[in-house]
Formats: sequence, structure tokens, C-alpha cells
Amino acid sequence: MSNSFGALFRVTTFGESHGAGVGAVIDGCPSGHAFPWDRIRAQLARRRPGQGKLSSPRQEPDELRVLSGVHPQRGLTLGTPIALLFTNDDARGEHYDELAELYRPSHADYTYEARYGLRAEAGGGRASARETVARVAAGALAEDLLAALAGVEIVAWVAAVADVDADVDAESVTRAAVDSSPVRCPDPQAAAAMIAAIDAARAQGDTVGGVIRCVARRVPAGWGAPVFGKLSAELAAAMMSLPASRAFELGDGFAAARMRGSEHNDPFYIDRDDGTVRTRTNHSGGVQGGISNGETLRLAVAFKPVATLFRPQDTVTRDRREVTVQARGRHDPCVLPRAVPMVEAMAALVLCDHMLRARSARAEPPSGATR
Amino acid sequence: MSNSFGALFRVTTFGESHGAGVGAVIDGCPSGHAFPWDRIRAQLARRRPGQGKLSSPRQEPDELRVLSGVHPQRGLTLGTPIALLFTNDDARGEHYDELAELYRPSHADYTYEARYGLRAEAGGGRASARETVARVAAGALAEDLLAALAGVEIVAWVAAVADVDADVDAESVTRAAVDSSPVRCPDPQAAAAMIAAIDAARAQGDTVGGVIRCVARRVPAGWGAPVFGKLSAELAAAMMSLPASRAFELGDGFAAARMRGSEHNDPFYIDRDDGTVRTRTNHSGGVQGGISNGETLRLAVAFKPVATLFRPQDTVTRDRREVTVQARGRHDPCVLPRAVPMVEAMAALVLCDHMLRARSARAEPPSGATR
Amino acid sequence: MSNSFGALFRVTTFGESHGAGVGAVIDGCPSGHAFPWDRIRAQLARRRPGQGKLSSPRQEPDELRVLSGVHPQRGLTLGTPIALLFTNDDARGEHYDELAELYRPSHADYTYEARYGLRAEAGGGRASARETVARVAAGALAEDLLAALAGVEIVAWVAAVADVDADVDAESVTRAAVDSSPVRCPDPQAAAAMIAAIDAARAQGDTVGGVIRCVARRVPAGWGAPVFGKLSAELAAAMMSLPASRAFELGDGFAAARMRGSEHNDPFYIDRDDGTVRTRTNHSGGVQGGISNGETLRLAVAFKPVATLFRPQDTVTRDRREVTVQARGRHDPCVLPRAVPMVEAMAALVLCDHMLRARSARAEPPSGATR
Amino acid sequence: MSNSFGALFRVTTFGESHGAGVGAVIDGCPSGHAFPWDRIRAQLARRRPGQGKLSSPRQEPDELRVLSGVHPQRGLTLGTPIALLFTNDDARGEHYDELAELYRPSHADYTYEARYGLRAEAGGGRASARETVARVAAGALAEDLLAALAGVEIVAWVAAVADVDADVDAESVTRAAVDSSPVRCPDPQAAAAMIAAIDAARAQGDTVGGVIRCVARRVPAGWGAPVFGKLSAELAAAMMSLPASRAFELGDGFAAARMRGSEHNDPFYIDRDDGTVRTRTNHSGGVQGGISNGETLRLAVAFKPVATLFRPQDTVTRDRREVTVQARGRHDPCVLPRAVPMVEAMAALVLCDHMLRARSARAEPPSGATR
Repeated sequence: MSNSFGALFRVTTFGESHGAGVGAVIDGCPSGHAFPWDRIRAQLARRRPGQGKLSSPRQEPDELRVLSGVHPQRGLTLGTPIALLFTNDDARGEHYDELAELYRPSHADYTYEARYGLRAEAGGGRASARETVARVAAGALAEDLLAALAGVEIVAWVAAVADVDADVDAESVTRAAVDSSPVRCPDPQAAAAMIAAIDAARAQGDTVGGVIRCVARRVPAGWGAPVFGKLSAELAAAMMSLPASRAFELGDGFAAARMRGSEHNDPFYIDRDDGTVRTRTNHSGGVQGGISNGETLRLAVAFKPVATLFRPQDTVTRDRREVTVQARGRHDPCVLPRAVPMVEAMAALVLCDHMLRARSARAEPPSGATR
Repeated sequence: MSNSFGALFRVTTFGESHGAGVGAVIDGCPSGHAFPWDRIRAQLARRRPGQGKLSSPRQEPDELRVLSGVHPQRGLTLGTPIALLFTNDDARGEHYDELAELYRPSHADYTYEARYGLRAEAGGGRASARETVARVAAGALAEDLLAALAGVEIVAWVAAVADVDADVDAESVTRAAVDSSPVRCPDPQAAAAMIAAIDAARAQGDTVGGVIRCVARRVPAGWGAPVFGKLSAELAAAMMSLPASRAFELGDGFAAARMRGSEHNDPFYIDRDDGTVRTRTNHSGGVQGGISNGETLRLAVAFKPVATLFRPQDTVTRDRREVTVQARGRHDPCVLPRAVPMVEAMAALVLCDHMLRARSARAEPPSGATR
Repeated sequence: MSNSFGALFRVTTFGESHGAGVGAVIDGCPSGHAFPWDRIRAQLARRRPGQGKLSSPRQEPDELRVLSGVHPQRGLTLGTPIALLFTNDDARGEHYDELAELYRPSHADYTYEARYGLRAEAGGGRASARETVARVAAGALAEDLLAALAGVEIVAWVAAVADVDADVDAESVTRAAVDSSPVRCPDPQAAAAMIAAIDAARAQGDTVGGVIRCVARRVPAGWGAPVFGKLSAELAAAMMSLPASRAFELGDGFAAARMRGSEHNDPFYIDRDDGTVRTRTNHSGGVQGGISNGETLRLAVAFKPVATLFRPQDTVTRDRREVTVQARGRHDPCVLPRAVPMVEAMAALVLCDHMLRARSARAEPPSGATR
Repeated sequence: MSNSFGALFRVTTFGESHGAGVGAVIDGCPSGHAFPWDRIRAQLARRRPGQGKLSSPRQEPDELRVLSGVHPQRGLTLGTPIALLFTNDDARGEHYDELAELYRPSHADYTYEARYGLRAEAGGGRASARETVARVAAGALAEDLLAALAGVEIVAWVAAVADVDADVDAESVTRAAVDSSPVRCPDPQAAAAMIAAIDAARAQGDTVGGVIRCVARRVPAGWGAPVFGKLSAELAAAMMSLPASRAFELGDGFAAARMRGSEHNDPFYIDRDDGTVRTRTNHSGGVQGGISNGETLRLAVAFKPVATLFRPQDTVTRDRREVTVQARGRHDPCVLPRAVPMVEAMAALVLCDHMLRARSARAEPPSGATR
């Protein structure tokens, strides 16, 4: 169960970094939807390594193969499981052989062995960010369903790298603006400073972390669920399942803890144009009691600095010797730019699942199937 | 599914604030464990309202009834579902009648109606913190299993209220120290300042939020799971399912985003005493790749200020009129002290579930059942 | 997880035979539906023991308490978990004390101890048919939703007892006809013979088994799911979860295994009246490829003879001694009449779940929630 | 969720008959087990079409590709998802084009369209028996774990074809004996009569059904779970998820319904050799109260005759015209011989899942993971 996510739009991923391939099976995708090859490829391109000096030089074409679930002639989803496969073409196991016997600090090498007694040593195995290629593809499908069926739009961006913070208008920012800089920060001044910070770290064999912010616009009121199925809870789980994520905020997050209720509460009013219920402020980030209120959904995710350093570190081996390790091979000095489509994907998976779950919330006659 | 949590130690809660009662069904509790009445009652007492001027004067004895799952004579868990019931004795529906037609700002009134078309108006219905009494009881049972079977110890405390931050040693703090102040902050100076901040807010009909920190000690290496079943993801979901929670951190959390890899990485070494693998620092908070590494698990949860204010606020009614609302009745000016056992309970639920899940991680002959 | 059933209309039952009570939590009931007190009570009355000499004299009023999930003033479902509780009033633990140390043949005493190391000895504990009171209540709610939202009607009857077979027209039989005899067989001649067979067995301290047949009418085409979610698979699981059930058939069942394809196939035709696709025969029992085809759903369930005998039987004790046991207390000589509403309840749970699951089968804009 | 099976050993299958391929993802396989290539290939060979005149001439090499979850050098399971892929090499879509517009009687063509609005027309799409190749592979892995960790042995055989019944000793029959006839019936006389019955049906363009029986030996007492997780319920669901299955029996099944309790009950005794609790008879089929009792597990599954006939049948088209259809292409006249490994696979999946679930049944200190 640990490798599946979602209740009705259920994604199961598989694959190790340097095995035959990675992929996903999506069970519960509604039928009759045009499979969005372009949207998926666009998000895969944004996630792909080798995009420039900011990211790892590993070359993976990330060619998407759809094994099932799409009508071969009509290109529509069938309602049956959609299996996606990405073969690992640029896997270079030999780079990693010397690492097989030791545990890289702040990687999952030791913990996987503690749990399973062995691990796929090459490239981090199952714990590699390579796994996220499958989620990004599944998330892009979810995003396409959200756009087509409910008009929802999701945009994420790099809001901080190291100690550089960006100033971005969450209500208006677009993906085009995000992609205008290689660091995926739509604030040009901050973007320049972020790139400088990444370069400075890399020059010292070091790495940096940062923060991604994400909005989902036009989420209708009434998505989410009580108690453990809260949007807040499932979005948190979604984001904290991403490699290197360390913290999650909804709406004002930690800043809310320092506010008074009179500052933080979002007063309701009636929109004169369409008679809908709106809030004058949005400290809640679009979610109240775990259910969407129709305002823009806002969240943030913090990523730790990349654990792989090109400088010596103390560590230990499987047979309990203390040694020193220094990375070679291909590694991002900063995961933030590539994590932008990952955050968008995870947000889309949660929202698509709740779009479907909302359909059974009320006692209404069934639509669809007739004799 | 939205009201259930956990895979093997699965808790389903039910109940509205002012209905007949609230409770939980725990499916998957291992058999043969002495049902921990004392531990459960102790945690319920810490969660109970009416503990003093810092919390709501609602008087609920929170008397625990165990309907099933415990051997009536021997007091041992049976392996069958354990149903817990708390009847609502001090429910005063009449206090809330005037609120039935309007949506209180930053409560779940509007969003529940958006989803379900109606709601249990009195006391917040299903969205009330009353629901957490069932989780605290279930969590105390989980905690007892963790202590008995694996020696795990969980301690949470109030780390911040409004703009007051406490200074607490996470490695050594005890529940006794936490409970030495009514605000459940083990730093006496900070505790006094927190109480002052709460009093100041209450005097103005206002409310405050804050931060709870939590540790779990002696979690063995190897609990957790890959990808979506990461401890980090499930702990985040657990904490973000608590009423009023707005943010979650594991280990250094948001601070990690500003560090370099060389600062944040936790170098491994071999413990000379017992030959185990340890880390010299613990920025990771005891979790790497979603799986425990044997160090102390550290997390934090931010809570927004209480939404119920004793001062006028703008809002709207069900029939789309703009009105003003001012709270009456019984409400906490600050949820933090009572949220301490809630955070402990949710941490225990996640860890107990993974303690059980770890049992099937490896290909070993089955223990237990024989002919 | 073992005590829960259903994906979207999810029922979790709890309780031992002679503990404080038994009950159910229903998570996922759509909101806004009038809680069907009368239908539930009617089905509970049909399940109740003490209905006459054919069944156990145990007197349980089976008074239904609804703890949550229903609007207290309006009587409508809230969309939140519906908790049902039946307290055990006529539990007579003392009758069973002598049985605590031995394993009754063909009961679950030994197997529960093999699994859990202990059991609730009195009355069969969790394995007692007492548990089914909660399912019957939950099933009656499901049935009411099916009737209100989709016009589905479910009727079950006793089709065989011992070697007596009834002749019943599955297309036209009604619950009134079923209830016209105490043995719940709508074929009067067969009913008389069944009663005689039950009386003859009882006179010898013996028991009998039998077969229940069940139809669901007006199930629309398109309910069900591929592969493991087939209606056939979930109905089979539902029925085989009932105490004493030993076999399941869909449509022609075992008889189909002896037919040729040319006999068994159901040719399609177009209904001249409404243009719908129909089948001229219904050997398939209304299900093809696991999905309903719009014809009457037909199934059968075989129940073994009651295991409790009022005559001596060889058995063993917990401490491995060979002894003789003879029942005392209150026990049905034949479970079939009371099992009729249980079979209806389980059919309703499966169909209601699939009614809700069908809502997310196709890519259609969401209904319901708007800003 | 409909395409997944199992709680802890969770198998998700994907794929359409004439798409790119079919496969499975197994989440929850314990780590450190040697991946059983030989056992899997052996069971695949027994399931493969084209084994002779008794089955379809479709030629699929069924070459197994393992995409993930197995250590590339050591051949051990990693504990991570095991993805299996079978590409469709002999898919001949053109044979089926004429069928795209009509609904074959007693196939799933119509019901899939009623549910999803479209279907993969070629070869039955997702409803094809092609899907079972993935289950047979996953089941063979489960069977290998059962054999290695608990000594369980599973054997199924063809017990009836059309009106021919075999006489087989369930306690002693072996797979070698089963495979001694092409019809997989270990009773030589019955096997000859079955082959004659199949030949006779084929000569008339007709088809036959039959019954498969299956035993699992050395299942320890204490596997299974209460209420909805009963072995009986899960085995029934497993078998009724197989294509063309129509009925399920555990132990004496329908025959039990005609017995008296004094005939059907299984008296306990103490085995003088090892002091274990045994039963003198095994009418229960090794399961009491849904939990294994240590005796041989016995079940039966009825399969309807193959729906594809080489003779004209009445049917209708998608645009509601009445037409006649006659099959061409490649189809089995009888699925029974190939269904033998499918029944074994499904039994193995249920038992392997419960072997793992039994590990968390009791409150015992965790094994395995240490610091």
C-alpha cells in the first residue's frame, strides 16, 4: 500500500533508479477523456534532468510509453488502469559501485537496509528522485482532468533558495512567468540571486535547499472531506512524500501561529456580481475545516539541501567501519527548479481525487449509466 | 474512508459535537495486550476542556466506555475491533441556535454546507474539536503498545504561543516537566509569558495560535516505508488532520531550506558501546528517505489562532445576507495546551501502524500460529 | 481492515456476542437522505431471534441507537459517519462458562484462539451471528438509498432447507409472499415441508442447513467494475462473510458448468418499447464481465447446518484433553429464516457501493458543489 | 481500486488484450526472497494458450519482464514494488474489427460500454482472459513465499467438464498427476471422457464449462480474519474475479446445505504424535469462522461454458440494430485446463496475504529492525 496514493484516482508507482525502468499504474481515471500527451510531455520536460548547469547532467529522454488504458485508435481513456512506463536508458550502474558498501549521509541507504535487509545500491534505488518521473506524468493527467472538468489551474514556483526570498503575486503568477528563469522563480531579481547562490554552493562542492509555493485557482467550494480526509492532511502527505521535502504549510502556515484570531480570520461577504459567498482575505489558503471554500488554494513546501556533496564527509560502511565519502557522478546542486512540476503534480493528484470523491457526497440520482 | 486513519492499526472516528456522542473503532489492535485504562484516562484528562481559565469551561467528564474488543474478565485486547464511546453530556444546543443560519468566519460551517448541502449546526458538528477525544483515547492505546513492545516514548510540548518562543531541550524533556505549567510549556519563563499573551488576547475578546513540538524516542531504525508511505508523509497527514493545524515540520523543517548540505547532513558514526550506526547530528529529525534511522524523531505543528472571537465580525448567512456575528458560549482562547496530547496521539497512531507494518517487511518464517 | 466492507459506502462493524454491545460505523453515506428508521426496524424485526419456535429464544429488543451522522432536528443524513449501536441486553454469560475451556466442533472457538491466543468465550464472541444485527441495519440504509436514487428492489427467500426445495418465480416474488410463512419460503407446500424438516431435526437435538436465493431488480446496466471489483466477486465476498455460509452462485452457478455455450449464452435483443438492450434469457444472472447488464441480478447462498447440537459430540479442551460437549442455552435449529434479511443486507451493501462508484466512472463535469 | 487485490501482498493488474501489454505491480512482497523465475515460468507455461487442440491457438510466448523490485545482481526481492510486464506479441487486432460495432452475447462488450461509454473492442479488451497472465505470475511468487516460509502446498485440478465428473483423492493428488492429461484431470478415465466432451462440443461449434477443485495443504491454524476478512470471503472474491467463474464452494459447499449438523460437524481430537488439535473429518474445508484450523483447505469453482461460439447467434449492435454474429479467430472451446493455474494463483494470493496479516495479530515485540 505504501507505493499507492489516492482513493478514487489511485496512482501506484514502481521502479528503482537504475533498474529496467520506472512507471505508474493509474486506477480510477474516468473514461472518455482525451489522453493529454502534450501536457504530460510538457511537465516531463520541466522535470527532466540535464536542463542546464543548474541541474544534473544525467540524460534521460523520459520517453513515455502508455501500456494500457487508452483506446488505441481514439486516444480516449478507457476507464481501465493506465500503465505508464519510462525505461532507464542512461543508467550507469558502474558509477555507484564503490557506494554499495557504505551509507551516504542523509540519504536513505542506511534506513532502507534497516528495513529490508538489502537495497538496490545503484543511484539510490527506490529512494531516488528518478521515481518522480512517474508521478509527474500521472499528475499531468490529473491536472488535465481538473482543467477540463472543473476549470482548475495549478501553478507552482520557486519562492526561496538558500537565503534568497522571492516576491511573487500568488493570484496572478503564470507558468510562463515561472519558466522565464532557469531557476523557475518569477521574480527576476530574486531569480538572479538564487542562481548566484546555487553557483556559489556548487563551486564549493556544496548544495542548497529552498521553498516552493503553489496555488490552485478556481477549486470549487466543497472539495475535501472531514477529519482524516481533509485537503490539508492529504496535501501535506502528498508534498511530504516528495524526496527532500521537510515542511509543509497551508495558507499562512507558521506565520498564522503568531497572529491573533482577529488578524487571521477571513470575513465572509457576498459577491455582488454572482451572489457567491467569498472571503475578503485568504489567510486560510482556501481551505476551512479541510474542505475548499472557493478561494485560491495556497501552500508551500520546504526542501532540504541536496544530500550528495562533492566534498569529503564522514560515514560508515555496511560492515560497521568508519570511512569518508565524496560524491562523483551526476547530481543536482539544488532540486528546486525540477521540483516545481513535482509539487504541481502532487497537488493535482489530491485535487483530482477529491473532484471524484465529491461526486458521491450527496444523495442524488445516479447519472450516466442507463439500460 | 475519510474518517479512518492507518493501514494495520486502523482508527475510524465518528460523532458530532452536540449529538449523542463521539467515539472510535480501532481495527487491527494486536491481541493479548492489557487495555491501558490508566494511560488513556491520563491523556484524556490532559485533553479535557474546563482545566482552568486557559481553556473552555465546557464540562465533559469524557467518561470512556469500551463497547467491544477487550476480554471482559481478563482485560486483554481480543484482536477484534475496539469500539470506544464518549457520550455528550454537557452538549448545550440552545447556545448555538442563532448560529444555525450563518457561517462563522474561518470555521467549517460554510465549507461543510458547500460539500453536503447541510450540516449539524450545533457546536461545529463534525468539525468540532470534540472529535479529538476519540483520537486521544485511540492514540493512548497505540502509545501503550509502542512502549510495551518497542520501548518508544513520545513527548510533546507547547513551543510557541503568539510571539513567545520557548527554549526546551528536546532530548531530555519529560511529560512531567511539560505539565508543570498550565500552558504545557516546560520553559518556565516562556510559560509565564505565554499565559500573559493568552490573557491579553482574551481580555480583548481575541485569540492566539502557536506551535507544538514533539519527539519520539527509541524508535528503532527501519520503521516507515518508501514513497507515499513515508513516515514524513504520514506524520504530516496525521498532524494536518488536527483542527486548526496549519503547518508541519520534520526535523529542521523550514530552517533546513536555508542551510547548505554541508550544514544539514547528518554524518554517520559507529557507537563504540553497542556497535550500532548513529548520526552525530540530527537535522533530519530521525527520518531519512521516509524511514526511521534510530535517532530521536522530531516534528513541529503550527496551529492558527482560534476562530471563535468574542468581538463582532463580518459574515454572511445561508440565504446570502451580510451580517455581524459575535461569539457566546464556551470556547478556548488558545488550543495549544489541550492540543499537546492530540499531537502525541497522532504521532503514536502513525508509529504504531508502522511498528506493525514492519513485521511483514522481510521474508521470514511466520511466528505465532501453529497447528 | 478485516471488519470493514465497501469502498465508498464503507461499513465497519464491531462487537462481541455478550459484550456491551454491537454496532456499525458507516462512512460515506451520501448526505441529505431521510434516515429510514422504518425500513431499518422492519429488517431488524425479520432478523431478530425469538420469532417463534423455528429460531433461538434469546430475547433482544435490538433497539437501534444512532450515535452520529443524522441531523438531530431534520432527520437527514449529514454525510459524516453514521454510528449505530445495539446494546446487548439479554446477554447471559453464565450459560457459557462451562464452554470457556473447550472448543465446540465446527465453531470458531479453536481458530480464534489459534490466531489471537485468546477469545471472548461467551456466546461465540466476535464470531457470533449477533454481529449481523449491525450489518442488517447498515444494509437497510443502503437498500433505502438504492430504492430512492435508482429504483432498485431486493428480495431474498429460503429456497431450500435440508432436502426440501422450493419452486419460486424469481421475477415476481415479493417480500410479503416471503414473509407469509415463518420459514420465509414463498412456496407454501415447500414451506410446510421445511418446517417439518426443522422440527424433525430439533426433536433429535440436530440441526439443518439450506439455501437462500436473492434477486435485485432494476439494477441499471453499468454497475460493477473490472477484474477484482467485479460485482460477482464482491457479492461472493459479501455472502461468504455471513456466518455459516459455505457456497455462492451467480446466475445459473454450478448448473452453468454442465451447460453448453449455446444453452447458457443470453442472446441480446432490442426492446421495442424503450429501445434498450435486453437479453432473451438470463443465465448470467444480470452480470457480464463483472458489470450489471440491466437484467435481474440473481444469486444463491448455501448455509451449512447449525454447528450447535443438543446431543453429545467429541471435542477437545484448551489444555488438550478430549471431552464430550452437549449444547445448552439458546440456539436456532436452522438459521435460514433469519438469514434472509442478512442476504438482502449484504446485496444492498455491494450494490449501494457500486451505485456510488459508478458516479466517477466517466469524465463528466462535477455536479453539486459550486461557489 | 477495482484492479487491485490483497491488503499486505497487494497486486494491481493492468492491460487490455490487444494493447501494448499486460502486467502487474506487486506492492508488499517481503524482501530478501529469491525471485522464483522457474516456478513463475512453469505456471505461465500451464496457463499459456496454444498448448494443443484443447485450447486457443493464439501464440503468446508470455515472456516475463521484471521491471523493478528485484536486486539486479543478487536476484532477491527488494521489498519495493515488483512490476511485471508481458508485451502482447501475437495481438491481431484486425480479426476483431467486425466485432467492434456489436455486442457478443454473454461477453462484457455491452456492460463495459454501459459503464464507460466506450471499450477497447479488440479481443475483449480488459475483460479478456489475457489479463490473467499477470495474476498467474504474481500468484506463483505468492506460492513460492508460502512454500518457503510456511511449507504450504497448493494443487488444483479439473474436477468436472460438461457432465463428466472425476474421482480424485484430494489429500494425495499432485501437480504431476494433474498434468498427466492435457485436460488437467488426474482421473484418467474421466480425463478421456472430458476430452471427448470437449471435442464433441467443438465439432458443433459449441463450448463447455466445468468445475475446478483446489486444495492448500499445511496451512497453519490461525490464518484468516473475522467478519469481512474471512478466508472464505476472500477466497470467494478471488475465485469469482476469474473470467467465466460462476460459483464458489468452500469445503462441502452446497452439499453441506442438505446435511444435518451431526453429519457435517467436524469433531476435534488430539493428535497423539504431536499433541496438536485436529478434526476427524473435514467437511468445513479447513476453515472455521473464516480462519484456518490446520486441516487441508478445500474449495471448488464453477466455470460457465465459453461464450464465444463458432455458430450463429442473435445479438445487437451499438446503434441498436439486431444482427447475427458468428465467431472467427482463436478461442478455447473449454477454459478449464488453462484455469487450473489461475485458481492456484488466486488461492496463493489470498493465503500469502493472510500469512503476512497473521504477523500483526498478536501483541509481540517486533522482530527484525534494530538500530
